[in-house]
Amino acid sequence: MQKKIVVVFHSGYGHTKKQAEAVAKGAQATLIEISQEGEITEAEWALLDEADAIVFGTPTYMGMASWQFKKFADATSKAWFTQKWKDKLFGGFTNSASFNGDKQSTMNYLFTLAMQLGGVWVGLGLMPSNSKAAQRTDINNLGASIGAYMQSPSDASVDEIPQGDLDTAVAYGERIAKTAARLS
Amino acid sequence: MQKKIVVVFHSGYGHTKKQAEAVAKGAQATLIEISQEGEITEAEWALLDEADAIVFGTPTYMGMASWQFKKFADATSKAWFTQKWKDKLFGGFTNSASFNGDKQSTMNYLFTLAMQLGGVWVGLGLMPSNSKAAQRTDINNLGASIGAYMQSPSDASVDEIPQGDLDTAVAYGERIAKTAARLS
Amino acid sequence: MQKKIVVVFHSGYGHTKKQAEAVAKGAQATLIEISQEGEITEAEWALLDEADAIVFGTPTYMGMASWQFKKFADATSKAWFTQKWKDKLFGGFTNSASFNGDKQSTMNYLFTLAMQLGGVWVGLGLMPSNSKAAQRTDINNLGASIGAYMQSPSDASVDEIPQGDLDTAVAYGERIAKTAARLS
Amino acid sequence: MQKKIVVVFHSGYGHTKKQAEAVAKGAQATLIEISQEGEITEAEWALLDEADAIVFGTPTYMGMASWQFKKFADATSKAWFTQKWKDKLFGGFTNSASFNGDKQSTMNYLFTLAMQLGGVWVGLGLMPSNSKAAQRTDINNLGASIGAYMQSPSDASVDEIPQGDLDTAVAYGERIAKTAARLS
Repeated sequence: MQKKIVVVFHSGYGHTKKQAEAVAKGAQATLIEISQEGEITEAEWALLDEADAIVFGTPTYMGMASWQFKKFADATSKAWFTQKWKDKLFGGFTNSASFNGDKQSTMNYLFTLAMQLGGVWVGLGLMPSNSKAAQRTDINNLGASIGAYMQSPSDASVDEIPQGDLDTAVAYGERIAKTAARLS
Repeated sequence: MQKKIVVVFHSGYGHTKKQAEAVAKGAQATLIEISQEGEITEAEWALLDEADAIVFGTPTYMGMASWQFKKFADATSKAWFTQKWKDKLFGGFTNSASFNGDKQSTMNYLFTLAMQLGGVWVGLGLMPSNSKAAQRTDINNLGASIGAYMQSPSDASVDEIPQGDLDTAVAYGERIAKTAARLS
Repeated sequence: MQKKIVVVFHSGYGHTKKQAEAVAKGAQATLIEISQEGEITEAEWALLDEADAIVFGTPTYMGMASWQFKKFADATSKAWFTQKWKDKLFGGFTNSASFNGDKQSTMNYLFTLAMQLGGVWVGLGLMPSNSKAAQRTDINNLGASIGAYMQSPSDASVDEIPQGDLDTAVAYGERIAKTAARLS
Repeated sequence: MQKKIVVVFHSGYGHTKKQAEAVAKGAQATLIEISQEGEITEAEWALLDEADAIVFGTPTYMGMASWQFKKFADATSKAWFTQKWKDKLFGGFTNSASFNGDKQSTMNYLFTLAMQLGGVWVGLGLMPSNSKAAQRTDINNLGASIGAYMQSPSDASVDEIPQGDLDTAVAYGERIAKTAARLS
């Protein structure tokens, strides 16, 4: 039976939304966008309750998930209190302007949140492309392991995101779907 | 000359405020409380601009600084962009209901934020009290190193916070003041 | 079919070994002890290759896994290079003398290692016991989420480890076994 | 008076050594190389005891400092026990083959170690070069904040390290020296 996968994300300027769409494409997932006030609807909370897998996405602002994402995360305390999301599969992704830009700080947090919620986490599972010949069009050229990273230059429009990072997001979505299928 | 130290914090239910007051007492610092909407006033931003040392404080909710603190942190991007807080001294503290409760996740973030802002960080600098005879009234009984930790049980009122953790906060404030005095 | 679970750990003075034995008891796992030179035998590497789930254990020394554990971790680069441990289930535990003692630093690393190896991570999945009435004999009294924590006072013998932390280790072992059984 | 700065590092294949030399050049620091057995001499421990500032350097192997660096770190427990390195200034740097490669994991650890030792930490303090026009020859093109990052492709010789990362290391050394001079 097809597993239900939900990607819940915040995007400030549209770049992280492109990443979310790429992950959702790979995972055949439903998308939930956290509003600029850090909120989602009751119907969207119900979708999360029913999901087999939940993927968190957020830009990295000032070294961490955006406040809007954190407001959503704080609101998951209800699900934490009853542990109703326990044993679900989780994953995460983030985007920032720099190659590093403290993205691992954000990703470690997405993982910690998932663990408080009683989850199981699936990482990227893709080898890095890091030889001298490596290109920004390669899969996992950024060399992530915990989840999917995207780097969109500070002056890049949403149409100028390195293709390799979008392809990485699709591949991560596929991996999440495969892992969800393995988990009874 | 007396250095200007500012403690900027969010508190959800008053416990972290007690910790903030204890740090401020030790450091002879000015207190700025982030509102329940994640905001501070223009006059308070000006105080931060003029500070020699800034101490961040927040509860740990769902494994990270509260969204209100993060909204403040996101708003420091203006100070980041011009690096106008560069070379200031920074420190941080956090409170949660469990002995651990992923407090280190929050503290690592407060540090990362300070580093993006171009700062210098001063840790707790107190040996842990962790023998069999150790008590919750001891200094650094929680065994922190990066900053000051406080553990207030989930059903404890603001008058029932372990004294050792409050004393630790005062001692950390003193250390921040001494380190600020050392930094020309 | 019974899944093969292996607990691979280093213990400096026997405390972490007690924790490893408790996890192994809960998970019905095989134990591999990393030597004081940071090594395991070829036969033990083969056991890891064949495992469905691998649990990492180490004391926290100076804020991180012991060097002996890290020497083992560095030697897993062979498994990383061929990704032959990809898709296995992973978990982790650590012990130190303080309530905190930067245990989360170690646990974040055990997770990062598992992610580089292409794994899936299962956290503790146990609510914290953190009310005023909480005792060191309670399950998850330390309030961990990423994996299992143990706190053995600096002057405690291996027979004086808080029972709640050992019980937590057993419960975590059981959770790992259940999650491994769910993962085809 | 000139402050005494010591860079203590491990290098597996010479790349991190180049980074160490660049930091030392910027800081006018003495270099101590940790052996392939994870050791330094008694005379070198004495140099660290006398230093005003200590800079830690290590490659990132399997998501963390090398075991040789960790063996050195474990041996600093003597300095921890007496807190004889308390109030010194600390910094750190790391190198790996990928743009990310979990370098932040290593850097967070170098910081945690410094905090256990009672230190004050100075981060990179350099804005990232992350526009579309950014080059690997730029200062802080990797977008670090906690310390200095270097990325040397997996098949790059020690003479093929991106110049911008070496220049970043020199600039970080200069910042450490300036900060040490500010700290009485």
